[in-house]
Amino acid sequence: MRAVCLLSGGMDSTTLAYTAAEMGYEILALHLTYGQRTEEKERACAEKIAGLLGAEEFCKVDVGYFSQFGASALVDPSIPVKDFREEQDGVPKTYVPFRNGNLLAMAVSYAESRDADAVFIGVQSSDFSGYPDCRPEFIEAFQRAVDLGTAREKPITLMTPFVRMNKTEILRKGLALDVPYEHTWSCYQNSDAACGVCESCHFRLEAFRALGIEDPIPYVERA
Amino acid sequence: MRAVCLLSGGMDSTTLAYTAAEMGYEILALHLTYGQRTEEKERACAEKIAGLLGAEEFCKVDVGYFSQFGASALVDPSIPVKDFREEQDGVPKTYVPFRNGNLLAMAVSYAESRDADAVFIGVQSSDFSGYPDCRPEFIEAFQRAVDLGTAREKPITLMTPFVRMNKTEILRKGLALDVPYEHTWSCYQNSDAACGVCESCHFRLEAFRALGIEDPIPYVERA
Repeated sequence: MRAVCLLSGGMDSTTLAYTAAEMGYEILALHLTYGQRTEEKERACAEKIAGLLGAEEFCKVDVGYFSQFGASALVDPSIPVKDFREEQDGVPKTYVPFRNGNLLAMAVSYAESRDADAVFIGVQSSDFSGYPDCRPEFIEAFQRAVDLGTAREKPITLMTPFVRMNKTEILRKGLALDVPYEHTWSCYQNSDAACGVCESCHFRLEAFRALGIEDPIPYVERA
Repeated sequence: MRAVCLLSGGMDSTTLAYTAAEMGYEILALHLTYGQRTEEKERACAEKIAGLLGAEEFCKVDVGYFSQFGASALVDPSIPVKDFREEQDGVPKTYVPFRNGNLLAMAVSYAESRDADAVFIGVQSSDFSGYPDCRPEFIEAFQRAVDLGTAREKPITLMTPFVRMNKTEILRKGLALDVPYEHTWSCYQNSDAACGVCESCHFRLEAFRALGIEDPIPYVERA
């Protein structure tokens, strides 16, 4: 069995890749860079993890077109990254329109090209409120499009083991799998010491605190 | 009303853009280059057409990752482009796995970023036999994924006016709209004079012949 794993280098996708490996899949790591501020750091983490897992391939794809389309703080430097203490009404500013639609489409192309059986994506339930393309109904609809739109005889299955889990549950699973979280990166803002206050840092730290464990990555000292 | 039009520079997508304009849409032209042999020629045609239509934007996106994935004569120079006289069993060698899934995902991201109401894609019935991601069922399934995976209040509608038409019918429609076919390109092989024998040239010439009209682009002289 062989699976394309979308591996950003963050804690969720890293836990995902370890989960796929535990299930017996050979890993084809697909790392997408879309002009986010912390691109280089995330790539280094993803490549390290792929190496540790003995991945068959590490495929890095530049999807800079998200920057061309704009409309997200992740790719447009003129939009400030949200401090988690700001209002969280509606769709987050870090929303990239239909990002998971694009990620899945690419992963499916890659999977079909390499005769892989599955695509793993780390969507998870705590994303539902803000990101419409993280919902299970979206994944189910996309699976139907994949079934109809690919030529492979056997299906390419979209695997979303975390879709009904929150970040704390994912972390608990990852610790059981000995995931080396020191080689993961989540901060949207910084690449050396994590800022600790962006949305991504906030939820990461919350998960570690919930399990009473210290996050092994460095954080900026706060006054 | 505003629509993203996938505009390759070929006769179908050009007729498509003219159709969208006739329906009253402002055009956002999305031109994708994926490392095909005739990339520059196609871009020049697409840009000319966008200009003639007064498009709001011409967005060129490099989707070179198809080459990274390989597995198609369109992007892999080691696979010969098929002569139309060769056997046509099964999926054509020019098949790029899940290409339309990728194209639609990008177009939807672009549409949502620009608050566009529709995405036009020139899939058509004569592609069905070989390309699974040209079938109406695929488009319908993808529409469902778009409805669930985007945050825009009003839907983004996938428009496939040619999905039940063949190339001759598309050409007839285009001639009625005064589409300038001299500024379109279809050949998979050459950029100066069309080869006349690749699959794409074959179907193009067949459509012109069926209507008793001469194709205005140059072709290689054959002995």
